[in-house]
Amino acid sequence: MTFHAAIDIMPLPSLLDPQGKAVSNNMSNVGLPQIGEVRIGKHITLTVEADDAEAARALVSQACEKLLANPIMEGFTFMIEEVETA
Amino acid sequence: MTFHAAIDIMPLPSLLDPQGKAVSNNMSNVGLPQIGEVRIGKHITLTVEADDAEAARALVSQACEKLLANPIMEGFTFMIEEVETA
Repeated sequence: MTFHAAIDIMPLPSLLDPQGKAVSNNMSNVGLPQIGEVRIGKHITLTVEADDAEAARALVSQACEKLLANPIMEGFTFMIEEVETA
Repeated sequence: MTFHAAIDIMPLPSLLDPQGKAVSNNMSNVGLPQIGEVRIGKHITLTVEADDAEAARALVSQACEKLLANPIMEGFTFMIEEVETA
């Protein structure tokens, strides 16, 4: 079965996020002072072939740990859904 | 009222995503050939002060269009929710 995964990888809450901080500070300059606390991470979509949803989740977890996320600085969450095949 | 927004910014479907392609090709090298079609974008969280949800959505849309996304190459989607204040 084919599953579609959507992964969010964000800087850990305890860490500074200089890119997000810079963007926060610039919101005023584009006329949007109402916006703050910007934090910037990665959004990754992928497909995974697996026998069932549990196996698919295990593979996506491995991909995050081995290749996609830096566990020292980032945390990840993801959702998977089966791809409908007509 | 304070709202929390979670924004996904992804390369447009019609565009190549060289970073995602490179990661796809490397999945086999880390023992995960089941994974493919990797596309990599940004996940951004922020807070916004607004009178109601509709106003908050308008501000987040403006932030995406003016500062966060490149409309030539990227599309964005977002969700907002009100922050509970105790």
